[in-house]
Formats: sequence, C-alpha cells, structure tokens
Amino acid sequence: MTETAKPRKRAGGRAGNPRRTRREVIAQSPWRVPRNTDRPTEPLDEAGVAAIHDGAMRILEDQGIEFLNGEARAVLKQAGCLIEGTNVRMGRAFVMEMLAQAPDRFTITPRNPARAVTIGGDHMVFVNVSSPPNYWDMEVGKVSGTRRHCADLLKLTQYFNCIHVAGGYPVEPVDLHPSVRHLDVLFDKLTLTDKVAHAYSLGRERVEDVMEMVRIAAGLSHEAFAAKPHMYTNINSTSPLKHDDLMLDGYMRHVRRGQATVVSPFTLAGAMAPVTIAGAVAQSIAEGLSVIAMAQFIRPGAPCAFGTFTSNVDMKSGAPAFGTPEYIRATQMTGQLARFYGLPLRSSGVCAANVPDGQAMWESSNSLWAAVQSGTNMVYHAAGWLEGGLIASPEKFIMDCEVLQQIERYFDPGVCATTPDDIAIEAIREVGPSGHFFGIEHTQARYEKAFYQPFLSDWRNYEAWDLAGGVWTAERAHHLFKEIIASFEPPAMDAAIREELADFVARRKSEGGAPTDF
Amino acid sequence: MTETAKPRKRAGGRAGNPRRTRREVIAQSPWRVPRNTDRPTEPLDEAGVAAIHDGAMRILEDQGIEFLNGEARAVLKQAGCLIEGTNVRMGRAFVMEMLAQAPDRFTITPRNPARAVTIGGDHMVFVNVSSPPNYWDMEVGKVSGTRRHCADLLKLTQYFNCIHVAGGYPVEPVDLHPSVRHLDVLFDKLTLTDKVAHAYSLGRERVEDVMEMVRIAAGLSHEAFAAKPHMYTNINSTSPLKHDDLMLDGYMRHVRRGQATVVSPFTLAGAMAPVTIAGAVAQSIAEGLSVIAMAQFIRPGAPCAFGTFTSNVDMKSGAPAFGTPEYIRATQMTGQLARFYGLPLRSSGVCAANVPDGQAMWESSNSLWAAVQSGTNMVYHAAGWLEGGLIASPEKFIMDCEVLQQIERYFDPGVCATTPDDIAIEAIREVGPSGHFFGIEHTQARYEKAFYQPFLSDWRNYEAWDLAGGVWTAERAHHLFKEIIASFEPPAMDAAIREELADFVARRKSEGGAPTDF
Repeated sequence: MTETAKPRKRAGGRAGNPRRTRREVIAQSPWRVPRNTDRPTEPLDEAGVAAIHDGAMRILEDQGIEFLNGEARAVLKQAGCLIEGTNVRMGRAFVMEMLAQAPDRFTITPRNPARAVTIGGDHMVFVNVSSPPNYWDMEVGKVSGTRRHCADLLKLTQYFNCIHVAGGYPVEPVDLHPSVRHLDVLFDKLTLTDKVAHAYSLGRERVEDVMEMVRIAAGLSHEAFAAKPHMYTNINSTSPLKHDDLMLDGYMRHVRRGQATVVSPFTLAGAMAPVTIAGAVAQSIAEGLSVIAMAQFIRPGAPCAFGTFTSNVDMKSGAPAFGTPEYIRATQMTGQLARFYGLPLRSSGVCAANVPDGQAMWESSNSLWAAVQSGTNMVYHAAGWLEGGLIASPEKFIMDCEVLQQIERYFDPGVCATTPDDIAIEAIREVGPSGHFFGIEHTQARYEKAFYQPFLSDWRNYEAWDLAGGVWTAERAHHLFKEIIASFEPPAMDAAIREELADFVARRKSEGGAPTDF
Repeated sequence: MTETAKPRKRAGGRAGNPRRTRREVIAQSPWRVPRNTDRPTEPLDEAGVAAIHDGAMRILEDQGIEFLNGEARAVLKQAGCLIEGTNVRMGRAFVMEMLAQAPDRFTITPRNPARAVTIGGDHMVFVNVSSPPNYWDMEVGKVSGTRRHCADLLKLTQYFNCIHVAGGYPVEPVDLHPSVRHLDVLFDKLTLTDKVAHAYSLGRERVEDVMEMVRIAAGLSHEAFAAKPHMYTNINSTSPLKHDDLMLDGYMRHVRRGQATVVSPFTLAGAMAPVTIAGAVAQSIAEGLSVIAMAQFIRPGAPCAFGTFTSNVDMKSGAPAFGTPEYIRATQMTGQLARFYGLPLRSSGVCAANVPDGQAMWESSNSLWAAVQSGTNMVYHAAGWLEGGLIASPEKFIMDCEVLQQIERYFDPGVCATTPDDIAIEAIREVGPSGHFFGIEHTQARYEKAFYQPFLSDWRNYEAWDLAGGVWTAERAHHLFKEIIASFEPPAMDAAIREELADFVARRKSEGGAPTDF
C-alpha cells in the first residue's frame, strides 16, 4: 500500500477547498485485487465449445490470416506455417502445441512493487479507460482531449484504489504532436501514477521509448527489466482476418523483452465479423490465437492474454452497440474458449451512452457482470468510458469506480461465511420476536465493517437528499472529481529518477521523437 | 397474445399526439416469459447450505415463531407443533415432510389465459412495482400516490410485454379511503390490465372482495375459480420471528381457495435480522418455511413460493440499502436454499436511489442480475421502484423495462447457437480479409432479428444525439411515458363482465367496503 502518508496543503482548483487533503475527499475501499470465486456462466455445452474451436481452426488452416509485418511472416515461416504473400495459414496441431506453452497466468510488476498485478487464474484486475479521442465533463461538454484532461484522468487512475492498472492514454491528448505525445503522456503517467503502464504498439521508436521510460521509472537495469514483465502492450486485429504491421512489430518487441501482451480482436458482428455471435467469436479466436501462437514460437512461455471485443453494430445506424445481451453472451462464450485454451482473458467495461446517465450505467453494469460471469482477468475501460469509446469522462470514471468497489466487496469471502458466529443463533435468541438487532453486542462488534459503504451512492431518504440540493449522481460525481483533482498528491518518486525521466524526454524530443509524416 | 388489434384515435394527453396509436409509440419485444438456462451462481458449498438449513431448523425447533393469528395456531397445534401463547415451535421432520408436498412450480391463470404464468422451474416472471406510498415523475416531483397515478402505472404494466404480472398497487392511492381502496384499484387493475392480479392480505373483507372480483373478471364459476390458481397474495413476516394476524388470515384464505401464495420475510441485516448475511438468511428461511409448512398441512400441494427480501441497512443512517454486494449474495444464497427445499423463489428489482439516475440503474442492475444468478422465478418490483420502495416512478418503470427486455433477449437460445450456419465459415471466406459483412447474403438474411433493438437506449453518436436535443435517459423515458399513456388502449373485456364488476364495486361500497376504525 502506497498512499502518501503526509497530507500536504495546496491551492486547490475551482471547486477545491485549500484545507482539504487527498485522504479526506472520500472514504474509499483499500487496494485489493478481487479473486473471482464464482463458477463462470457457460452458455455453451462441450459440443458448442468444440464447434467454435473447430471453426477457428478451420479459419486458420484453410483461409489464413494476413500478417502485414514481414518479420512476423518470417518467424511463422520458420515455424512451418504456409505463407502466400501476406497470408499465413497454420495447422491446428501447431497452434495447440504453441498454446500448451502459454502460461495461464503471469504477474506484471510496475515501479511500485506493491501495485503488481497477476493476470490470470481467478484474479480480476481493473484498468482505466484507454484511448478515447474526446473528453466530456459536465462543465465543458464534449471537446478534443488535451494533456490536462489526460493528466486529470491519470490522477483519478492513481487516486482510486479499485483501478489496478494505468492502461493506455485515458484520453488522447491531441494538443500534443504525435511525434512526442508518447513521451509527454508517459512522463505524466509514470510520475502521476505508480501502477502498471502500457505501450501502444505504434512503431518501433514509441515502443522502445516507453519501455525505456518504464525501466527508468522503476530504477531497473536492462537485465532486470527484461527478467520479468513490468509493462504490457495491447494490440487489436484489423478485422476481418488481418494484423497490422506496426501492431505486430510492437507486440514482438514486448515478447522478446519478456514483457506482457494482450491481443484483442475487435469483431463487431454484422460489420467486420459475421452477424452471428458464434461466428464473430470464432473469427476473433482465430485472429487472436494466430498471434499468440507466434509469440509462443518466438519465446515459449511468453505472457500472453486473449482479449475479447466482440459486440454488434446497431443494424439501423451501423453504430457499435455495447453492453447488449449479445455482448454479454459473446463475452461468456469467449471465456469458455479462453479456459479451453488455458489463456488469461481480457474483456471491457463498455457502453454506447453519450453521457453518464441511466443508460450508461445499465450498459456498463451489463458489461461488468459479463466480465464477472466470463471469468475475465483483466477488465479494460473499467472506469470512464462513454460513446462506444469515443469519449472519456471523469464523472463516468467516478461512477464506475463505485460499481467496481462493489464488485470487489461482492468477492469478499466474508459476505457468504457460514460459521456459527455468522448463523448467529444466539443473537437471534437474544433479540427475540420483539427486539431490534442494532443494540446487541453481536451487531456492535461487527457493524462498522459488516456492509459495503458507498462513496457516491446517496442512501439518504428523498427529503434529506432533496434538502441537500437534490443532486443527481452524475453531478455528485462531478463535484467529487473537482475535489479529488484539487487535493491530488502524486505518489512518491525518487528525485534522481524523476530527473532521469525528464532528461530522457528532453533528449528524445530534441531528437524529434517518433517519426511522423506531418 | 392479446394486443388490441384495432388502433383507436383518442384525444391524447399533454404530450400526446392525437394521431398516435398505442402500437406506434415504441417497437417493443413480444410477450415472452424467459427461461433462465444459466447455472445459478452458488457462493455456498454443501456445508454452507447445510449450516444455514440447520440454523433455520434450530430457530424453528428451539425458539419458534410468533403466529399472531389464532386460527393458524389451531391448525399448527393440530399438526403437532408446540404452542405456547402465540409462540409456535415445529420440528424439522415435520417441516421437511410438509415441504416435500409443496410443488416446485405452479401456474397462475388470469382473466386472459394467454397471460398465464408459471412460477418455478426455470421460468423468470417480471412483476411491476408494488406498494410505494409515493409517486415521482419529472414533472410533479415526489407526491402522495393517487388513483390517477396508480392507473397510469397500471397502464404501463399492461402496455409493456416484459411485465408479466400486475402485482400489488403500483402506487398506493392515498386519495381513496382505505375502506374502499381495494375495490377501486382492483376495478382499475382488472379493466386496465389482463395480467395476473394479487390481493393484499389486509383483512377478511378485502381478500374476499378481491377474490370475488378476480373471479368475476375471468367469468368463472366459484368452482372453476377454486380449481386452480387465478391470483395470489404475498405476505411479509414482521421480522424478527413474527407473523401478523391479518397476513396469516389472508394467506390461509388463498391456500384454502386453491390460490397461490408468496411469503417474503423482510429481513434487513443489522435491524430486524442479524448483522451477518448468513444469519439474516437463516432467519428469513425459518420465518418463511413456518408459513409454507402450515400451508402444506392445510392443503397438501398448495402452490407456495418463497420470497427473499434480505438486504442490509446503512449503518450510518439506518436507512435500508438495496442492490448492494451483500444484497446480491443474500439473494444467491437464498436461491441455493430454495432449490434445497424445492420451492419457487421470489426476489426483487430494487434500489435505494431517489431519482432514476445512474445510481438507480447500477443498484437495479445489481438486483436484476442477482435475480438471474439466484434462479429467481418471480421478480417483484422489476420496474418502477425508487427510494427503497417509498417511490413509484413511471420514468424508472420505463427504464427498467429496457433492461428487462434485454434479460429476455439474453435468454434467447439463438444468441449462443453454434450450428454451422452460426459459425459462418462460408461467410468469413466470402468476405475475406478486406471486405465487410454487411452486404453479404448471410448477414442480409439475418440482420433484422440478429440483435436486440432497444426502445429507450440512444445508440446515436454524440453529435446526432446532441443535435436532437441532448436528452438524458430519464427525460427520454418521461416523454415516452406521456406518449404511452396518451395512446393507451385497455385490453378487451366483455361489457357484461365489466358491468358485473362495476355492480359489485357499487354494492360493496354501499355496504361500507372493508371496516376501518376511522
């Protein structure tokens, strides 16, 4: 646990009270990675799993996947795959032999080792929203993301104990030139958070720069960095059936340096995948496994997770839909396949809603329960996502964190304990048919920790809530956002390391950063 | 299916378009009772189930339950139970012998036989909100319920195909004197809806009046009425460990007339039940089984469901909390016990939120997913509940219906089908690595029914949504509410039956209705 121990006064933002300190804004749950002890929901029988597996294998064997990266094709040729142009076909025996080498769980250790997370097994890790180009809050509405918005969302990422991983850019800071964007954002991320970080696989320079910055921030030698996962990348396929050049490049760089990887085919049924859910899942399995097989050939035992991003489009408008019944089932089905292959699973906390209202929360709840029911190990976009990923919102972030904390509490084994003390026969006898349980010793000894305590839900009665202003949830979240940012304290970082990071950024900027054609 | 076939023009309300007809307001899902095919989530192992069962049996054997109704005590004395004053103790052998006679499912047939519902097995039936004393909508705010509010909510109950049962009064019409309230509301309910109705167990006259009205509305002889369930009652215990006089009276009247019953102990952990969830569940099991055992002794095979209403209070304010992690687990645990006893299960769609915002929807989603995960057969308050049951809201009703429709779709077996047509290898081959699936025959043949179509969720992008007014979910629901009420068409009813009902109400009113002391 690394909450900064010493409160420090600061000026505070517009809504900030200068006397407030970070630890006073809310009483949140402590850092804990929940263990998903529920038996997964499995809509497919054995034959159904076999049918999707067979479909995926037939795609890989008969039709193949386009690998737009020459080095990847060379590796796969060496592995015995059939290469024709950019098309790669691989046999199921090879795929299954490679998958047998993939670990069913792995640990990623960031600069603060207390924030290490295990991906796989029954661990359930929550990642902040990543990659929306736009920012929305109740004050400014929808605007293009900036470095300040991005930093604010990184502060929320650090502040909330229920967010375990600082994934991609929580909003794309389009005010930063793409050649140096990764340098500035990673500097912000590595100084404002001490949680696991991520590199976008968007070209050699960016990937190498981010790896180097993560290494510097953790104070590691090159050898120590490569000895185990300290960060990860996530790549998407270009569905249908295609893997991008730069994505593969970055993915392989992570594999070779011993860092973790996630491959998340983005198969929207009816658009870039079949209109049938089983078909969309089979295609995503084929796309994902082709890359994981490559990773295992390059480095047997490489830490690889499979990501599902199968949903559907709205057939009226073509817009992607999220948190739908079909999305839930696709996630559960993919969970069955991930267990069949022995791979950790990534899914997401997603919605199509444009603002943090009722729709946003039922869609997000659907996708978070799908994550629980599918045995998801890594929940991307668990807090802050709106408009199908086009908007990052601090209010939504904070509302989602309330739900995430509840899932953590849901998995607290104490809730379902059945010791004689829990059955409480003596307490029931003591109270009898006319009494009340509040006053008795059995209650008094337990009441402070007996139940989940929300920080955002308002449980007052209507009149008390109304008297206090009658504030709806999104607006309450907005106020909390202002207070949290105003009182934010960055995690401790050694001054020499911070300087080394700053120097690295300055040097790489002076060298022009990553090449762009504009 | 009984949608009125012929649209009829009517004046319409404030927001109503006189040219709109009922069937045009939204395109909703057809009437269908979902079958819950998911394996339930079971947080307890066998020993945990045995521990709660043993706790409940010890309460029944050693401490007993207060039965405040003399006739009930006489029945239980005859059954061999130990009676001391109002206290009744019963042995586990007797309880289990009685439960062995209880059916694991039963069917309730209302005046329209197409609306018959089966309670039990894998059936999942949704009931409207019942019994809040207050009404809230975005126009009037929170006010005491009236007959008009009640009728509006009954219209929503009838309108939405995903609401299968017209439970209690969707809001208490406090403008009607309690002596005749049941007559007026049942007249409204039986003429505005054709779905299963319910009688409050609030005294002999009310119960007998409602039974008679349900019989008249269905055009049944007294014998045909008593031959199978046409309605039901739900009673709550007066926790801890007490059953009210009038509740027991009404319950027994239903049992004797062959009508269905639900007993739902209202055990809020930390207040009227132990602060520990297992203790609160054990107490609720003891309270509920004591009454179901009595029912089976009176009439072996009587259709009885067990209702769970175990949640917790906010230990800061004493206010009840709903849709919490503890609530979810309590519901799942009670589901395990209900299956152990072979009884159909009732739970609820509940929240503590005061308005239909984000909090309302995450709390309601939590409780609806708990209903799914627990194998709940009858979901009370599935649409329209706010403020821990103190408010009924039409906006919340409509928002909940969107979620209920999604649960219905979630259980559509087609979503997870894995036939060769679903795996869609040929479609994937046809599109190849550079195409799009929308145009192909495989998609075109399926797209209209491939995915859930919402009526309230707005899936447009932000700009299109903003251009159309940027309306948040609750306000969209408010507009729909106005339109639905303005275009509402009551279900068909024979004029003679309607007259007989009206005559009955007039006669009973002239007799003074049900006695009150004011």
